[in-house]
Amino acid sequence: MLVQKYKDMISAKSVIRQLAEFAAARGKEIGYENVFDYSLGNPSVPVPQEFTDEMMRLLQNEPTNKLHGYSPNPGIYSVRETVAESLKRRFDIPYKAEHIFMATGAAGALAHAFRLVTEPGDEILTFAPFFPEYNPYVNLTGAVLKIVPPDTGSFQINFDEFERMLNPKVMAVLINTPNNPSGIVYSTDTIKKLAAILCDKQKEYGHDIYIISDEPYREIVFDGVDAPCVSALYDNTIMCYSFSKSLSLPGERIGYVAVNPKCSGAEYMVNMCVQISRGTGHNCPPSIIQLAVSKVLDLTADLSVYERNMNLIYDELKALDFTVVRPGGTFYIFPKALEEDAKAFCEKALKYDLILVPGDSFGAPGFFRMAYCIDTEKVERSFYALEKFVREEY
Amino acid sequence: MLVQKYKDMISAKSVIRQLAEFAAARGKEIGYENVFDYSLGNPSVPVPQEFTDEMMRLLQNEPTNKLHGYSPNPGIYSVRETVAESLKRRFDIPYKAEHIFMATGAAGALAHAFRLVTEPGDEILTFAPFFPEYNPYVNLTGAVLKIVPPDTGSFQINFDEFERMLNPKVMAVLINTPNNPSGIVYSTDTIKKLAAILCDKQKEYGHDIYIISDEPYREIVFDGVDAPCVSALYDNTIMCYSFSKSLSLPGERIGYVAVNPKCSGAEYMVNMCVQISRGTGHNCPPSIIQLAVSKVLDLTADLSVYERNMNLIYDELKALDFTVVRPGGTFYIFPKALEEDAKAFCEKALKYDLILVPGDSFGAPGFFRMAYCIDTEKVERSFYALEKFVREEY
Repeated sequence: MLVQKYKDMISAKSVIRQLAEFAAARGKEIGYENVFDYSLGNPSVPVPQEFTDEMMRLLQNEPTNKLHGYSPNPGIYSVRETVAESLKRRFDIPYKAEHIFMATGAAGALAHAFRLVTEPGDEILTFAPFFPEYNPYVNLTGAVLKIVPPDTGSFQINFDEFERMLNPKVMAVLINTPNNPSGIVYSTDTIKKLAAILCDKQKEYGHDIYIISDEPYREIVFDGVDAPCVSALYDNTIMCYSFSKSLSLPGERIGYVAVNPKCSGAEYMVNMCVQISRGTGHNCPPSIIQLAVSKVLDLTADLSVYERNMNLIYDELKALDFTVVRPGGTFYIFPKALEEDAKAFCEKALKYDLILVPGDSFGAPGFFRMAYCIDTEKVERSFYALEKFVREEY
Repeated sequence: MLVQKYKDMISAKSVIRQLAEFAAARGKEIGYENVFDYSLGNPSVPVPQEFTDEMMRLLQNEPTNKLHGYSPNPGIYSVRETVAESLKRRFDIPYKAEHIFMATGAAGALAHAFRLVTEPGDEILTFAPFFPEYNPYVNLTGAVLKIVPPDTGSFQINFDEFERMLNPKVMAVLINTPNNPSGIVYSTDTIKKLAAILCDKQKEYGHDIYIISDEPYREIVFDGVDAPCVSALYDNTIMCYSFSKSLSLPGERIGYVAVNPKCSGAEYMVNMCVQISRGTGHNCPPSIIQLAVSKVLDLTADLSVYERNMNLIYDELKALDFTVVRPGGTFYIFPKALEEDAKAFCEKALKYDLILVPGDSFGAPGFFRMAYCIDTEKVERSFYALEKFVREEY
């Protein structure tokens, strides 16, 4: 008597994963260097040497029982202190260790944030285009994720649709800026307008509405872009962070929940996360990774390749007459397909060994995502295939 | 509007944690070496050097993006293969990689196992004395944990009570052998009898009843003890394992779910765990730890100190006329208190700087737990305090 809902989910394969599998299989035929694989958002730049050095230092010098021992439930206190100090310094918000819950990447952080503020049946709104994993992440908690349709002109927030969808069951708004898949960074104006609407609605509905701010791409912001700190503009913000992208450590499962000290209920939330974690089986990120990351908190991998790739691809797409909004960060770009059906468009691109992901599962049909966390040399080589594709098919 | 059930849980402090905090505070007053702290089940023996060497080798030799990259959702395939081969060799059960889901320790493994086979409202039975965290682990999934009262003569299973409590809502039976807190290992007879009853009841109720076998203490079994492999004696067994105790790595969060190949639905279960993990925010144990552990799978830390300590404590308790069942494994012993109220007994022991945990929260009032994962020298020194305590108070 296996639980049917999970069994049913098995057959619904992720489009991104299917395309990545296609790319891998095709790579075996013609050499992976000849497959222009823009499917997966895997960081491509090396981990900072300082992280590796710190891991080695810990392994060589710390007593093994201390190093590999149980972390306290909310995370190692000194690590939480270091995270709080770094956030305070950067964003001028008075975070303390008590506001930080160490989590196994952004997925772990989000799993706890959702459970903090929603009961089964409550609604969480998010904005298309959005990371498709938000669907199972939220819906498996018993809360209900509703998608606000995109503003396809700018990929900022479509406020008309948002206001139409707000209702007293909405307990949280989930945002992701810099955004996967659009690459867009929500401007200060956007966040301020969002905050103003939520402040009004909190009064009207008589309950808090939290912003759950998923920020794994926070450090990947391009030159001159206005990238406000959400927590600084709205008190009821729960920040969910991951070091996966900034330090190129996605496999080591390390991130945190940072509760805005001005949040309603801030004094309870980290201890509540500890309780939640007993049900999710979470029990902290790995001890050695917590300790090593805390020494390199303010470093990043060399992220400049992403901006270099973006500039090249953006110019190429414009030259080929694509409609495309210039990304402000991340390693994604989200152009309009050259026909209405982006699935058909991406299917045709496969003939040219171009792996592009249709926007349908991101809540934006007609668009497609390119993840350009690949070598610049390969980006440049892909343009020949892209040009051939466009010329021959459209 | 924080979720009340988690907020309410904050104030219900774990007795074990309170005692550990008392021990730490008292240690600051009189020196921790003078506090006979039997409260916490933290492995005290060093991590095998081979693990540390393998971590260093990986850090020195592997490209960082490969080493720290995303693990596939069920775990790294080669690691799952190695785990399956090791289990097959040891227990003569035809495990394959497809039956292994890498998990963040036993807590992570259990969180997935519970969700595999229970819907909200379904029952899971477990046997006192039991690990008190099972309560939130199960109840926060929406299933209901029911506790079968102990057989205090042997701490094997109380089958009369068990059969009384079985009913069609029971979808799983959760067992923990070697057992925390009793230190008892369920005998082959016990497991066979349990299996026979469950086989009958499966037919009677017309649905599967799974054994969820929580086995973090599997490698800590003492000389000559009959310690059967549960999966070999009951087809519908979901094994939950952690390397926390065998390799002294509790902070690194590494373990697995091993689905018996003969399980009803075995072909779906690991893929279902992958789906479940999207809701729990689990997303795999850390990549580097998976890789390093896979190279030292069949090693253990030097666990002999636990048996040495057990023998010393058992003899001392018998000499002092305690009623106590000799442990077959783990690093726990669970004697009867010298008065009916074990809380009062443990409270009095504190005056002698003996930190003992009352059995009430383990479902066995009147008993107390000693976690003897401490230095043998300290165990020996504690006997003076224990003798003084017994002489003066009883």
